[in-house]
Amino acid sequence: MIPIHTLIPIDKASATPIYLQIANGIIHCIRSGHLRKGLKLPGARILADTFKIHRNTLQMALDELVAQGWLEIVSRKGTFVANDLPVMRPIKFSSNETLAHYPEKTIFAVKKMGVESYAQTNFQQDRNLIITEGLPDIRIAPMQQLMREMRSIEKRSGFKKYFNYGNPQGTLYLREELSSFLSDTRGLSISSENIIITNGAQMGLYISANLLLKAGDEVVVAEPGYHTATLTLERAGAVINRVPVDDYGIDVNAIEMLCRKKKIRLVYIIPHHHHPTTVTLTPDRRMRLLNLAAQYKFALIEDDYDYDFHYSSSPMLPMASLDRHGNVIYIGTLSKTLVPAVRIGFVVAPKNFIEEATQFRRSIEFQGDTLMEIAIAELYKNGTIANHIKKAIKIYKDRRDHFCGLLQDKLSDKINFKIPEGGMCIWAKFMDADLKKVAEKASKKGLTMNNGETYNRIKNYNATRLGFSSLNVKELEKAVNILVECI
Amino acid sequence: MIPIHTLIPIDKASATPIYLQIANGIIHCIRSGHLRKGLKLPGARILADTFKIHRNTLQMALDELVAQGWLEIVSRKGTFVANDLPVMRPIKFSSNETLAHYPEKTIFAVKKMGVESYAQTNFQQDRNLIITEGLPDIRIAPMQQLMREMRSIEKRSGFKKYFNYGNPQGTLYLREELSSFLSDTRGLSISSENIIITNGAQMGLYISANLLLKAGDEVVVAEPGYHTATLTLERAGAVINRVPVDDYGIDVNAIEMLCRKKKIRLVYIIPHHHHPTTVTLTPDRRMRLLNLAAQYKFALIEDDYDYDFHYSSSPMLPMASLDRHGNVIYIGTLSKTLVPAVRIGFVVAPKNFIEEATQFRRSIEFQGDTLMEIAIAELYKNGTIANHIKKAIKIYKDRRDHFCGLLQDKLSDKINFKIPEGGMCIWAKFMDADLKKVAEKASKKGLTMNNGETYNRIKNYNATRLGFSSLNVKELEKAVNILVECI
Repeated sequence: MIPIHTLIPIDKASATPIYLQIANGIIHCIRSGHLRKGLKLPGARILADTFKIHRNTLQMALDELVAQGWLEIVSRKGTFVANDLPVMRPIKFSSNETLAHYPEKTIFAVKKMGVESYAQTNFQQDRNLIITEGLPDIRIAPMQQLMREMRSIEKRSGFKKYFNYGNPQGTLYLREELSSFLSDTRGLSISSENIIITNGAQMGLYISANLLLKAGDEVVVAEPGYHTATLTLERAGAVINRVPVDDYGIDVNAIEMLCRKKKIRLVYIIPHHHHPTTVTLTPDRRMRLLNLAAQYKFALIEDDYDYDFHYSSSPMLPMASLDRHGNVIYIGTLSKTLVPAVRIGFVVAPKNFIEEATQFRRSIEFQGDTLMEIAIAELYKNGTIANHIKKAIKIYKDRRDHFCGLLQDKLSDKINFKIPEGGMCIWAKFMDADLKKVAEKASKKGLTMNNGETYNRIKNYNATRLGFSSLNVKELEKAVNILVECI
Repeated sequence: MIPIHTLIPIDKASATPIYLQIANGIIHCIRSGHLRKGLKLPGARILADTFKIHRNTLQMALDELVAQGWLEIVSRKGTFVANDLPVMRPIKFSSNETLAHYPEKTIFAVKKMGVESYAQTNFQQDRNLIITEGLPDIRIAPMQQLMREMRSIEKRSGFKKYFNYGNPQGTLYLREELSSFLSDTRGLSISSENIIITNGAQMGLYISANLLLKAGDEVVVAEPGYHTATLTLERAGAVINRVPVDDYGIDVNAIEMLCRKKKIRLVYIIPHHHHPTTVTLTPDRRMRLLNLAAQYKFALIEDDYDYDFHYSSSPMLPMASLDRHGNVIYIGTLSKTLVPAVRIGFVVAPKNFIEEATQFRRSIEFQGDTLMEIAIAELYKNGTIANHIKKAIKIYKDRRDHFCGLLQDKLSDKINFKIPEGGMCIWAKFMDADLKKVAEKASKKGLTMNNGETYNRIKNYNATRLGFSSLNVKELEKAVNILVECI
């Protein structure tokens, strides 16, 4: 037999167990013809010595290969490469085919998605304390219940149909539960026909923007505002008009002036806890904005991503609940209510909009995540989500109070902020400190925060969002202490 | 107290249990102010009589309301509307607000997604036998193992990080497992950097098409071809050029002629089991097409949605495995390998393409379904997927043989077809029968089949795809018997 160990390099640092590296290596040799059918392998001890590994490890590799059908044990004779190999032997379609490296780059040019790329938020790799943006605390979310519901889909015969193709609008079951929930909590008198389930709020925005806009359409956003939304609107063709935000929300006078000058197609707002400044749009501005929308017939995208988390017990009803004419496209999500990895969001709009959005969603991905939809519907039905929201409000309110107290005690001469009525963040204006340097230093000391780049690109507020919701009291104290050291 | 039963209509036909209807109705009355804080409720017997329901049912409603905090029991005094109400009382932001109907339509025009809409495939509602398209048999898929892995994410402390925000390219863990699997089964010598995970093959196509095309770009597809892909390419701006397919696959001469006449940006092909005709592109045509791609620098989208299911034990390696220059964008999916509701697909391409695709995916939905990705990665690692494929090949091959045998016995004078080497369907040309009428009749008798509309719109082949993979032998016999009755 050929010295197969020379063909099977073992990487002891790899995440793949050694026995599996060997098993896969032997499969590779069988496939490539280096080990022919029917070949008798040397004894396990000899092989183990050849590979310089423990005999048990080698035995695991052999067991794996026998289980997969690559090897056969003939009793009292030994171990052989199987004559009837288990899987497909793909045909090479060219005789002068040689093992080539996969190409480094495409031969053709690929559209660039723009220099202003979306911020990376792969928090899975981050071992720091994280106060970047507002994150839900994954430790308090009812994930056990969610996973239990998920698993029970497989066990309930009536639910197995959900393994098949489904409706790109989202399963009826979830849309019905959700329309009741939205009616109860947000005063939206809607039916399941007014809802499309999306993969998080971002897909709601992507679909709405691309359905509403063609290149050159005039769109209004707030400044400072939610950068990712602005980018999504721009990529859908929008010409962006920025209007200021003050302590009472977006400047509706400025919007009216724009409407007089040009045809505004769409206004994007976060009336409840504006991103990034956390202010709430006042009732009279809301009424005026709705009236303007009716008069100038523009679409209002109301992004209400953290409605559930309001700490004064009196959130303002969404503008969508007062929409008489069909101006408002209302976007929400469960990624903040549960955990970010649960990509269930929704759009509420008049039926004609939802129908086209459904067609569009179908062209993007056929359908959403039915299994997650069903599990979430069950959690709505049995009250788990409502109960979790109650619990989370209490916890996050305490954390907000604690965090704001700490900042006021220790950093009131360095950071300016208002206590937010809801949400998961404060909008912190740094008086003199260089935010980028602070964030850089903090990261080295074990604290990840947003360096403000996304918020201060149009105008420099020297401000950033600091999230409090995902850290407990002890962790918040640690985080603030690091902040104090770094400013 | 007001006669609350008049405000709470009970619908005995509803899926919502009656006690929950009453509980929700009472919550509504409390919220709306019809039942004020501190109000004492009548005794349970009186209330039960008022609602004309059994006292136990009423007690369940009361228990629910107490548990949720809407009612309080004061011992020896009675049941009261709680003074400290449990959830948020949203503020109405207008005083002259009246309960309005939600608008029927938007006030602004919404882009129409086109008359040629995607076919509806909501098979969840269908109680017929289904031979529409090729569907995997959800009964044989390893869903129990998948759901177990899913649930274990919540139980393994090292995996909880996956509840947080993740990478829009897909989790590294799955991309690494998948690149090994693709290398083993398809001869693709790639790394995790050459893979983006998508929501099914459709999202791979959507992203690729929109990344590659601008309005007016010339694109080549096969005729007959996969209608949904053509539509996706058109919506991304493509001008469609159709070239014929014969028994050896797409006509490469015709593609070369087009290349000489105009700048071709992209060619879309399904070389393995062409949709709809199931033919496999021959090796020499593959080589010629790859050479053409290199010469004319066009992108080749290789859609390989059912590579795994080949019954002659010798599938052809994908064209991507021989790509030397970076021409091929390779698309695959697990929706056929497992079940349609598992929306995990992938694109394999040179790194520069994957990077832009990742940015694009982020703008659509931030990230994919991390939890499903991790569960699938585990199934790759522990061999479940490889084993399932082996099992499914055996089962589907038997079904193909049985189905084709039945058709030859009973319908050889009505239907023309070739036995496909792989996949889940046959391409059935009906000699005289009116396909639409056949499908209509069949549906009434309990058999759902495609009436051919999507396949015969450019040219009338009077043909449709009949799927055999999701029905067992008995069901196939039933299906063919219904077909016989309907032709």
